[in-house]
Amino acid sequence: MNAYVYGYGAPGKERLIVVDLGVAFPDMEGSPGVDLILPDLSWLVENRDRLEAVFITHAHEDHVGAVPHVLTRLNVPVHARAFTANIARRKLSDLGVPDDDLHVVSPWPETVQAGPFRVGFLPVSHSIPESAALIIDTPAGRVIHSGDFKIDTDPVVGEPFDAEAWAEVSKGGVKALICDSTNVFVPHAGRSESLLGPEIEKLIAGAPGMVAATTFASNVARLKTLALAADRAGRSVVLLGRAMRRMVEASLETGVLSGFPKVVSPEEAQEIPRGNLMVLATGSQGEGRAASAALSRGKYLGLELKEGDLFLFSSKTIPGNERCVIRIMNNFSERGVDVVDDSGGRYHVSGHANRPDLERLHDIVRPQIVVPMHGEHRHLREHAKLAEARGMQSVVAVNGTMVDLTGNAPVVAGHVETGRTYLDGSVQIGALDGIVRDRLRMAQNGHVLVTVILDEEDEPLGEPWCELKGLAGTGSSGADLAEVLETDLDQYLRRAGAKTLRDDDKLEEGLRQVVRQTAQAEIGKKPEVTVVISRLR
Amino acid sequence: MNAYVYGYGAPGKERLIVVDLGVAFPDMEGSPGVDLILPDLSWLVENRDRLEAVFITHAHEDHVGAVPHVLTRLNVPVHARAFTANIARRKLSDLGVPDDDLHVVSPWPETVQAGPFRVGFLPVSHSIPESAALIIDTPAGRVIHSGDFKIDTDPVVGEPFDAEAWAEVSKGGVKALICDSTNVFVPHAGRSESLLGPEIEKLIAGAPGMVAATTFASNVARLKTLALAADRAGRSVVLLGRAMRRMVEASLETGVLSGFPKVVSPEEAQEIPRGNLMVLATGSQGEGRAASAALSRGKYLGLELKEGDLFLFSSKTIPGNERCVIRIMNNFSERGVDVVDDSGGRYHVSGHANRPDLERLHDIVRPQIVVPMHGEHRHLREHAKLAEARGMQSVVAVNGTMVDLTGNAPVVAGHVETGRTYLDGSVQIGALDGIVRDRLRMAQNGHVLVTVILDEEDEPLGEPWCELKGLAGTGSSGADLAEVLETDLDQYLRRAGAKTLRDDDKLEEGLRQVVRQTAQAEIGKKPEVTVVISRLR
Repeated sequence: MNAYVYGYGAPGKERLIVVDLGVAFPDMEGSPGVDLILPDLSWLVENRDRLEAVFITHAHEDHVGAVPHVLTRLNVPVHARAFTANIARRKLSDLGVPDDDLHVVSPWPETVQAGPFRVGFLPVSHSIPESAALIIDTPAGRVIHSGDFKIDTDPVVGEPFDAEAWAEVSKGGVKALICDSTNVFVPHAGRSESLLGPEIEKLIAGAPGMVAATTFASNVARLKTLALAADRAGRSVVLLGRAMRRMVEASLETGVLSGFPKVVSPEEAQEIPRGNLMVLATGSQGEGRAASAALSRGKYLGLELKEGDLFLFSSKTIPGNERCVIRIMNNFSERGVDVVDDSGGRYHVSGHANRPDLERLHDIVRPQIVVPMHGEHRHLREHAKLAEARGMQSVVAVNGTMVDLTGNAPVVAGHVETGRTYLDGSVQIGALDGIVRDRLRMAQNGHVLVTVILDEEDEPLGEPWCELKGLAGTGSSGADLAEVLETDLDQYLRRAGAKTLRDDDKLEEGLRQVVRQTAQAEIGKKPEVTVVISRLR
Repeated sequence: MNAYVYGYGAPGKERLIVVDLGVAFPDMEGSPGVDLILPDLSWLVENRDRLEAVFITHAHEDHVGAVPHVLTRLNVPVHARAFTANIARRKLSDLGVPDDDLHVVSPWPETVQAGPFRVGFLPVSHSIPESAALIIDTPAGRVIHSGDFKIDTDPVVGEPFDAEAWAEVSKGGVKALICDSTNVFVPHAGRSESLLGPEIEKLIAGAPGMVAATTFASNVARLKTLALAADRAGRSVVLLGRAMRRMVEASLETGVLSGFPKVVSPEEAQEIPRGNLMVLATGSQGEGRAASAALSRGKYLGLELKEGDLFLFSSKTIPGNERCVIRIMNNFSERGVDVVDDSGGRYHVSGHANRPDLERLHDIVRPQIVVPMHGEHRHLREHAKLAEARGMQSVVAVNGTMVDLTGNAPVVAGHVETGRTYLDGSVQIGALDGIVRDRLRMAQNGHVLVTVILDEEDEPLGEPWCELKGLAGTGSSGADLAEVLETDLDQYLRRAGAKTLRDDDKLEEGLRQVVRQTAQAEIGKKPEVTVVISRLR
């Protein structure tokens, strides 16, 4: 979830630009029921009058995904290259947000002036078309924001890494390189996308039945590699999943993709022999609603994988998604489908620069300062150590850190409150509002609801009533748990003094304690308790 | 979660033995709030009169963990080797279950007669002391149950893999080998535990500050390897975490461990220079309550890792635990601690036989039939394909499959209802009882409680009352969500006819619909709803 702010000016009066506005994805463990995780932009919104523009480096969700959700609050121009803007426009349109603020920028040497900043988009190779580094000129010198990148001189789709262009933009001296750190722990040099085609062709050539493959929908180069391999093996290509069709559409519209074989629809595919088909499906991370998961469960849009068919994960599993991916593998195994993944290193390459590639970029740019970005703390720390060991200044800037880059070494100049907000249904809620905490507690502990009615004299009317949710119906006594609770609550009410019965807070707390104690004795759990006291007076 | 049943006799009247009774561990995604996952033993309990005995191959949780929870219901003798029995006895004692049924068996050639079965424990190397394969003689021939194993001729602790002993037990002909499948996809031969010592010594030798390492507590050989490396580097060893102290205790009590350096207590450690300390900590899978996680958060029992210290994961991360492990790595990174893991393949070896090792065991035993066990479906399927390709009969036996092994080839003879039960607090609940489903729904959708009171004439008394849990307090209208819901519910009640007001089910359903529709409009979510209707008549 990326959102970087650059500022120039007197302290507290800096003019600002934002680079990237991404989202992250929720999980059951930390954010159940949440739809999207957005950066908390309160500070930016408060300082909106100082904000000049937003620049988006590329169209991955963790860089562009928040734009449609926050644009109306920021109300500034957004600049991006054509493909990125195309994707952003589709997102805005999905949510009915006008796209008047969205501007397409041609690659470097074209630049955009935004307050004291002049910003250009230098093409870099990555795992999505038209990724760009930003060349940010300020009165204090040039800063380069690498964006997500890899060093690939033959990336199949999109511009190759152009060492000469990088040398050219660096030759006047670069104050600071703000640099991708994702793969700093990978010791070998990165491999080119173009190496995968022959391996994938070999794999497909030996497959007797239907072949299906998944990868990130946005990895248009991989889609092309897979589709060309299919084409060479005499297979027609079917695209399954909205994200994939959308990415191919955007690529064709913006001209970044050419030479992609003709695709057939799922309906047309049913008239084609199984051995002449290749399905490209969304859901490489095991997403339950994507096409790969659907195929693993059975027939999907008339297509079905069977004994002897082949399914290829042309992808890496992002940490945390292992169980979902493995579930799909086992589903396919139960259907007799052979599953191949990248464990042998033949069917996927990373979109990020490995350690030697980072060293190479440092050497080309030779910045005074390297500020590691895009990674967990351990990646940033390792990248900073690497830069320092090679004679550059560096700093680990965690979320919210404001770094002064104007001197010879980076200086931490302050901290800004940052965090996450959750898109939950149609509303944004704070990650620390307690709403999600309550959900997690109900999921962990179950929930007991108690209702009590008191008459005009504050005397209990009838017996208390319990409803359980997410709890065992019977415990150690063998009796119905709700009834055991009601009996104990009734006893409590009968013994409660008038003072307690008149005091909602006291009474509620007393009833809650009874429920928790009785439940602990009966089922060994202390549930969440909601007490409703109705008074007829 | 292992539980295998072998039977011999006329169909439906077979005498039975059980091999292993293990547990699995819950997660937030599928089983929130659950304490342990146990095999559903309903079928075994129903057929208890046919059950002769239980045999436990080794002391890992997924093989022995269920014993204390189900033993009283099965009420049969449990046989295990000394170390395994020692661990099982501690578990029984924790739960106050008598251990009279627990019997220690010496290794092969000692055997135990159990109905028509004669069973012996053949030592195998694995990642815990005294693992055993079971040599099961029946009137229909010999069956070998491999247990979890690896081929290691120098396993540091415990018996080496003894190819001669395996050849000896196999020479009369083996009907079926029921065989570990965990690492069937790993293409290279397994490596010996003894290779790790020199690598770990090298790592520690270069460390200036405190060193801490984690591994599975039950991997006593690894604990010894780590402790000896510490000792050679002049470091005193501290054991942190109950499971680790317990395993070392059990190993010393049963004599499986010798030559372990003297350990110091955390209190004593505080008098020793940091550079002369080595901490061995529980929690290699990132468990939040274990010692590694505690150390990553700060001071723990007086010990604290700091800038320049070293933390070693001498372990593999089990799929699904990545996020927790990564969290600990980043916590340490924030404290300036260098984290080393096994990504380079130097500080951990697997406890399971890789593909070439499986082939080697097949070759030594040359069974008629190979029944793959201990793996996901994809592992079982691959292992069956491997066996068949090498001229043996095989079958993929998923949970509940009853396989007839008396013929020349395995025949699926039936299916038994199997599944999982959850230990939830102090009670066992069915995985499909709906209890956990309700928890997941509350976590996903939040919860609204509605209370309505109707008077003696079935007319609403006052207004309905709503309590929200796990939901945003305000939605699109900007008004308090509970109030908006109450207004809409009140309107519904006012318009409801007498027939609806007299009918609890109808009224409840109507109120539920109102809540879901209004919530959808306000916050874009359809919450779980509990309606309580109180009638004063």
